[in-house]
Amino acid sequence: MKKTAIVGYGSTNFTKNEVPVESLLLESAKNVFDTTRNISQNLIDGVIVSTNDNSKYLGAILSELTGIKPKITHSVEHLCSSGSSAIISAYSYIASGLVDVVLVSGADTINNPGQVLEWDKTRGEFEHPIFWASMFTKAHKRKFNTTEEELAIVSAKNHKHAIDNPIAYSHKPFTISEVMNSKNITDDLRLLDCSHSCSGGTSILLASEDVASQFSDEPIWISGIGQKTNSASFATNELSELSSSITASKQAYEMARTSPNEINVAEIHDAFTVCELMAVKDLGLSGNDNASDYIRNMFNTENRKINPRGGLIGAGHPLGATGISQVMEIVMQLQNKAERRQIHDAKKGLIHNMSAAATSSTVMILES
Amino acid sequence: MKKTAIVGYGSTNFTKNEVPVESLLLESAKNVFDTTRNISQNLIDGVIVSTNDNSKYLGAILSELTGIKPKITHSVEHLCSSGSSAIISAYSYIASGLVDVVLVSGADTINNPGQVLEWDKTRGEFEHPIFWASMFTKAHKRKFNTTEEELAIVSAKNHKHAIDNPIAYSHKPFTISEVMNSKNITDDLRLLDCSHSCSGGTSILLASEDVASQFSDEPIWISGIGQKTNSASFATNELSELSSSITASKQAYEMARTSPNEINVAEIHDAFTVCELMAVKDLGLSGNDNASDYIRNMFNTENRKINPRGGLIGAGHPLGATGISQVMEIVMQLQNKAERRQIHDAKKGLIHNMSAAATSSTVMILES
Repeated sequence: MKKTAIVGYGSTNFTKNEVPVESLLLESAKNVFDTTRNISQNLIDGVIVSTNDNSKYLGAILSELTGIKPKITHSVEHLCSSGSSAIISAYSYIASGLVDVVLVSGADTINNPGQVLEWDKTRGEFEHPIFWASMFTKAHKRKFNTTEEELAIVSAKNHKHAIDNPIAYSHKPFTISEVMNSKNITDDLRLLDCSHSCSGGTSILLASEDVASQFSDEPIWISGIGQKTNSASFATNELSELSSSITASKQAYEMARTSPNEINVAEIHDAFTVCELMAVKDLGLSGNDNASDYIRNMFNTENRKINPRGGLIGAGHPLGATGISQVMEIVMQLQNKAERRQIHDAKKGLIHNMSAAATSSTVMILES
Repeated sequence: MKKTAIVGYGSTNFTKNEVPVESLLLESAKNVFDTTRNISQNLIDGVIVSTNDNSKYLGAILSELTGIKPKITHSVEHLCSSGSSAIISAYSYIASGLVDVVLVSGADTINNPGQVLEWDKTRGEFEHPIFWASMFTKAHKRKFNTTEEELAIVSAKNHKHAIDNPIAYSHKPFTISEVMNSKNITDDLRLLDCSHSCSGGTSILLASEDVASQFSDEPIWISGIGQKTNSASFATNELSELSSSITASKQAYEMARTSPNEINVAEIHDAFTVCELMAVKDLGLSGNDNASDYIRNMFNTENRKINPRGGLIGAGHPLGATGISQVMEIVMQLQNKAERRQIHDAKKGLIHNMSAAATSSTVMILES
């Protein structure tokens, strides 16, 4: 099995603008071409597109727009974690020996159709994700005595981090009290507890160990992969833990032969504030600490280890691009290229993504 | 790299009925469960869905409906050849060692949104595929002096084969003259020159060499894979050959260390009659013969080697299911289970699928 590295990346800004999905894919792919050494179209034999857009044949369309004539191309969809699924699919194409170099491009527009899962009737009349997040929050308060302030710290921290992320959706600072006084959406969640759908595209270039060095002096290796889908229906979920994330993280740690205490930097799926508190515990990152105390300590010490680019709450959530932009951030961190967001001496990074109330999760571990 | 086999299959009937895509996926997957030895949900660690449907999260939905909690699941879309792309993706997940057993389920409904590629403005006002097929036909007539009768033989042959395919869309015989006298749609193509979109779902089960024998005494191995996407726009295509199919077939023959004259049975993408004539030549199956003479000879001698289940013209074309049902047919042929459709002593089979005026193609070779 061939080792696989990430050797290039590029992104659009994440914005409120209505932009065609093809333009988002193309702009982010063009940024990969502009910044990756020795890249040329004829060296790329795979193009995987990640999106929730209803447009068809986007793999072939992006290939034509970029001048690539790939062996393998198609679109991948798996709601919020489509991007992570696309990366792992590309990994498997390379690891299996079918291809050597794959462009993975993900994009969605602000009004993309992946925001509501109509199929899931177990959500009752509450179709929007904020309702499952609200139930998660109620359960978290019950189990851990979580306070509104502790939830607000997640948002204040991630909005603060996003200020130093040039492509982020939000560049505004919010104090804890501003978050706590933002508009109530449900009993348990306020406007600033939520990430926002937006328009954005991000691309990365994956290469096999045979060719990675021609594109980068600092290839970042995918050493751990874990995935789990438990269901599609919210009602089958436990409310007090992300059980699919727990399973996925165990697989990823085992494959990478590492453990949570060796992770230097992590991108966590914080679609809502409670998700970050649940994830840092369930992935083992907060160790024996209470998750809220762990995040409060990060905030107070200006430690950017968790969600340095601002998470989904600060950076925005263009569904098909999210998983790819999470990986791009960890690659930049491990290459010591994250500028004002840089975690000192980061060697191992983790990416956590999930879909539809954590009915499915993906965890990846990257190493320099 | 692990060898990968097909160890189970199942399908719905292909019909005109409006059936929800989830039901088509579930019914075909259930048929796999009903007919595959030792299968159980906890042995399946991948579920890949192939569809052009706009519904999201179908991988997770099918997993829940079938009681599978897979490691890997997502949807794959690549227009007409989505099913072939999904199978090759599943192959790569197994070959890379990430998983051992993958259910690949493809389905589309009769009014699925993959029939017209609105993005391709090079089709001018002629959005429906019949217009590119008409231009292919005109070019074929010009280059090979192809007659209307020669085109009609393809349709008469494939409709005849479909009579013995219990799940086919059409079970009506048509004479050559009936085809030639069917309704004119364009200058060059008549109603019976065309395949029809329909509702249908087909599933197959793939397993690694480590576990294949527990599910089947006759695993059928994927020995050759070729894929090529040249563009998304019709206007960039040559009219007189399927250049992406030529490239894909060369890759597949080379990977399988075989050649066209060793192929005993082939599933060919005959969305329109001209496509079968072009493909048997471009894949090398007709050897030194003129393609029309080759197909005429098959028809006259009742040799079912090309499109034994009736092709897309006879069996119907439920986009996301098509590539999977082509593979199911070749597996049945190589297992000597194709009953009245059986090719005597078939050891090697080929599957050819393509999308959007052959801007992309897939070729697979299977062996017993």
